[in-house]
Amino acid sequence: MKKRVGEYLMDALSTVGVEKVFGVPGDFNLAFLDDIVSRDDMEWVGNTNELNASYAADGYARMNGISAMVTTFGVGELSAVNGIAGSYAERVPVVAITGAPTTVVEEAGKYVHHSLGEGKFDNYRKMFKEITTAQGYITVENAQTEIPRLINAAIAEKRPVHLHLPIDVAQSEIDVVEAFKPAEAVKQDVSKYIEMIEQKLKTAKQPVIITGHEINSFKLHDKLEQFVQQTEIPVAQLSLGKGAFNEESPYYMGIYDGSIAEENIRNYVDNSDAILNIGAKLTDSATAGYSYGFDIDDVVMINHQDFKLNDTVASEFTLSNLVNGLLNIEYKNDANFPENIREEKGQYTPNNEPLTQETYFKMMQDFIGLDDIILAEQGTSFFGAYDLNLYKDNTFIGQPLWGSIGFTLPATIGTQMSNLYRRNILLIGDGSLQLTAQDISTMIREDLKPVIFVINNDGYTVERKIHGEHQPYNDIQMWDYKLLPVVFGGKDKVAIHDVETSADLENVFLQINNEPNQMHFIEVKMTASDAPEKLDAIGKAFSKQNS
Amino acid sequence: MKKRVGEYLMDALSTVGVEKVFGVPGDFNLAFLDDIVSRDDMEWVGNTNELNASYAADGYARMNGISAMVTTFGVGELSAVNGIAGSYAERVPVVAITGAPTTVVEEAGKYVHHSLGEGKFDNYRKMFKEITTAQGYITVENAQTEIPRLINAAIAEKRPVHLHLPIDVAQSEIDVVEAFKPAEAVKQDVSKYIEMIEQKLKTAKQPVIITGHEINSFKLHDKLEQFVQQTEIPVAQLSLGKGAFNEESPYYMGIYDGSIAEENIRNYVDNSDAILNIGAKLTDSATAGYSYGFDIDDVVMINHQDFKLNDTVASEFTLSNLVNGLLNIEYKNDANFPENIREEKGQYTPNNEPLTQETYFKMMQDFIGLDDIILAEQGTSFFGAYDLNLYKDNTFIGQPLWGSIGFTLPATIGTQMSNLYRRNILLIGDGSLQLTAQDISTMIREDLKPVIFVINNDGYTVERKIHGEHQPYNDIQMWDYKLLPVVFGGKDKVAIHDVETSADLENVFLQINNEPNQMHFIEVKMTASDAPEKLDAIGKAFSKQNS
Repeated sequence: MKKRVGEYLMDALSTVGVEKVFGVPGDFNLAFLDDIVSRDDMEWVGNTNELNASYAADGYARMNGISAMVTTFGVGELSAVNGIAGSYAERVPVVAITGAPTTVVEEAGKYVHHSLGEGKFDNYRKMFKEITTAQGYITVENAQTEIPRLINAAIAEKRPVHLHLPIDVAQSEIDVVEAFKPAEAVKQDVSKYIEMIEQKLKTAKQPVIITGHEINSFKLHDKLEQFVQQTEIPVAQLSLGKGAFNEESPYYMGIYDGSIAEENIRNYVDNSDAILNIGAKLTDSATAGYSYGFDIDDVVMINHQDFKLNDTVASEFTLSNLVNGLLNIEYKNDANFPENIREEKGQYTPNNEPLTQETYFKMMQDFIGLDDIILAEQGTSFFGAYDLNLYKDNTFIGQPLWGSIGFTLPATIGTQMSNLYRRNILLIGDGSLQLTAQDISTMIREDLKPVIFVINNDGYTVERKIHGEHQPYNDIQMWDYKLLPVVFGGKDKVAIHDVETSADLENVFLQINNEPNQMHFIEVKMTASDAPEKLDAIGKAFSKQNS
Repeated sequence: MKKRVGEYLMDALSTVGVEKVFGVPGDFNLAFLDDIVSRDDMEWVGNTNELNASYAADGYARMNGISAMVTTFGVGELSAVNGIAGSYAERVPVVAITGAPTTVVEEAGKYVHHSLGEGKFDNYRKMFKEITTAQGYITVENAQTEIPRLINAAIAEKRPVHLHLPIDVAQSEIDVVEAFKPAEAVKQDVSKYIEMIEQKLKTAKQPVIITGHEINSFKLHDKLEQFVQQTEIPVAQLSLGKGAFNEESPYYMGIYDGSIAEENIRNYVDNSDAILNIGAKLTDSATAGYSYGFDIDDVVMINHQDFKLNDTVASEFTLSNLVNGLLNIEYKNDANFPENIREEKGQYTPNNEPLTQETYFKMMQDFIGLDDIILAEQGTSFFGAYDLNLYKDNTFIGQPLWGSIGFTLPATIGTQMSNLYRRNILLIGDGSLQLTAQDISTMIREDLKPVIFVINNDGYTVERKIHGEHQPYNDIQMWDYKLLPVVFGGKDKVAIHDVETSADLENVFLQINNEPNQMHFIEVKMTASDAPEKLDAIGKAFSKQNS
């Protein structure tokens, strides 16, 4: 069957579940976009710029399992690299497609716009090598091998891939031999390693599981919970990957974040004689600057292509094979462990005093619905929100390893578009919002209905906590945030609220719950120096790390 | 004398004339920023995001000769790469400084935030290799050789350089042996090549100079004009580098843009038997898709490190040496050439009909003041504005080689801050504005007073002209543009105007001239399909090039 290469690519992406494609048009991708907008099974989502598109694609992939974005050569693809690198770091599979000059133009070494003007065309591809797990230059000849290879690599590694697609190639017809089918996951014999883990557990008095973001990337939640139910080993999760484990499980203890974890969790974990680190990375931001009380060399590392138990290391096993292997372990834990205590609702009394961060998050705890998606921006929002007690069907999205401020706003476009029926709650601060604010316009254009809480506390509070609390570089221009939805065409679509006190906030929560079928935008005023307790501690740890 | 490495770097940048430093704070650069904000001879300009900072730094460097920007490791520096690559392509010297994790953290291969989480720290540096002319990893030991080497490279090549500056290094004290002094320009013997040019001219009947952006980069305007006055060879300039030649000179013919140039200029150039291409690049956008009527192999190429005359090629000579060499040529042209005709003012009659692009630019021609800086965004604005007749002391800034939409808005921060006393006129369209709109906030914060014309014509008109005129991907969300300055805190600082007719525009021009000491923001409504004549032609050329 004859198809254009662009069609074949879109067919393949559709096969793996891509229904939205994010990006920005440019002359080297326009004709290819025709092959997107003409499809019934796919929607083109034009973002306001390419960085925002890459964040939206990341958010969509975190929910949907994979995503795609299209930019133009040079100016477009390079504006997206920060977002793509973040997807790489946090293992989010994004298929980044660059519409590029024709092969004729490239072969002639022409001085074409969006090139560096020296007749070379490989500079940007080399850059993408550093931040993607696979890269390909699509030609008419290789389209039916390269496109499958790249999509399969994204799925296997849960990381972004880069496709360089000359615009003439996209429009060329090929004889499609067979439709793309995703590769089946490779089954690996991990029994030797599983037995080693079993042996270790059998001599353990106080075993524990630390889990994190790779469980989300590889969607291994059910397998992990099954393993926990079988073995009754308690679980602590990192802020990097919150959502990896069901917080309603009786085996869930809470967040482990090194020296700043709750005392009973910290004591249990730090004194454990069998720590299974499953799909988790003990980064500085997840552990308050590596302040864990255990010896990292004693931890059993069960990560994707990164297994380690004492002196045994192996880099060939996928996380899926390892976690599946764990289900064969016969072991039951009988140590007592600290239970995760879910406080009763209403642990606050609304009043007309200025709202504090502490009360804000206490109230947010009560506001959260059973299957909300919560996006928490790196800053006061993340450091306050990662201690929230979630329900089984909540999804939590942050970016504490990559930590690119501004990420969550466009990411909300992606998460919301993956499922229009779940409520998305975005928690963000003013400093972060300013980086990517214009994609509120894309939300309004796409008629999305997230609930957006913007903390207005006059600057980069997260930076103030690390260095230069009163330095001018941590100040930002004061915006009239509540006008943003109006500027972006949302005058009649967005409910806008103002919060200065806990009484205001309670009232706004009521209004949001009463009017679920619209976008809500809430400006929450708090003071510049107020921060969640955890942020204070992390700020000190980062400051120490930098000196 | 003891100085911190950060201080030494700032001293060196101050020596070469950097008075503003653009960027965004991040924990890996905060302590270093102290060494900027504490100086009397330097100002920190915090942009709303790093891409905007890179554009502002580009604009500042185009005026000032060099600029500097500071971002943080990973998330920050990668958001800036599109801007830096643009500076590379168009030869603008920007010193891009990345505040990075400490050497201790790097040597230990820690999983630190803003890294890819795998203990590697060189990925981003490798990416910058592709888009900067020199790169350096600053240490205590090499600071006094590497910092001079990098600043000198930026000056010599008029291209960006990248400094990777670990935050502990920035804060470490060194014994400064001697203060940085910029390297003197190397004198090269170019006489052999100059004689060849002289010989060629002496047999020529219809010589012409085509000039462009490298004259602006290397600031060789006076030398070029001197050469023209001596030899009386007429000059055509490319849109890529408009401003390279004094448009008030009797030897100036006008813009040469291939097949779409004015007929008499086109005839003169295409039939010339001695074309000296001085500091110009015949790119697709500058020549309506390489539609020149001469044989490119006959052109004498006098570019930076790129000389060619017939079979003689040389890549070792700087443009400065070559242009200086030209002054030794004894030759006087006596061919007649088409004069640049400066039309009388008032070639339009204001009325209440919807404003057209044609009238808009005719009126803009009359509005321009003697020493205004005109920034024209790639799109209808650039393709309309590059045919404007400028005065000797105007400066014209566009980006037709790199062509990153959104560039000119933050660039205006840089051009305006290089000289607060010259009026900056920004001509931009809605689609482009949406990419970088939030840096209007930075303009207001810094109390700048540019005049900003935003064409609201409902989408990406430049793309519509290339492909998909009515396709949804070329539509954008309609914003209430006039509210933008209000959102960004400019309610009492910015005069906001609305233009739908030529009568409106004339009235607004009067108001702007009557109130020069404030920022003006003008929304100009035009129809989606209306475009400057030249854009129509370029759109067709690009469309053909892509098929």
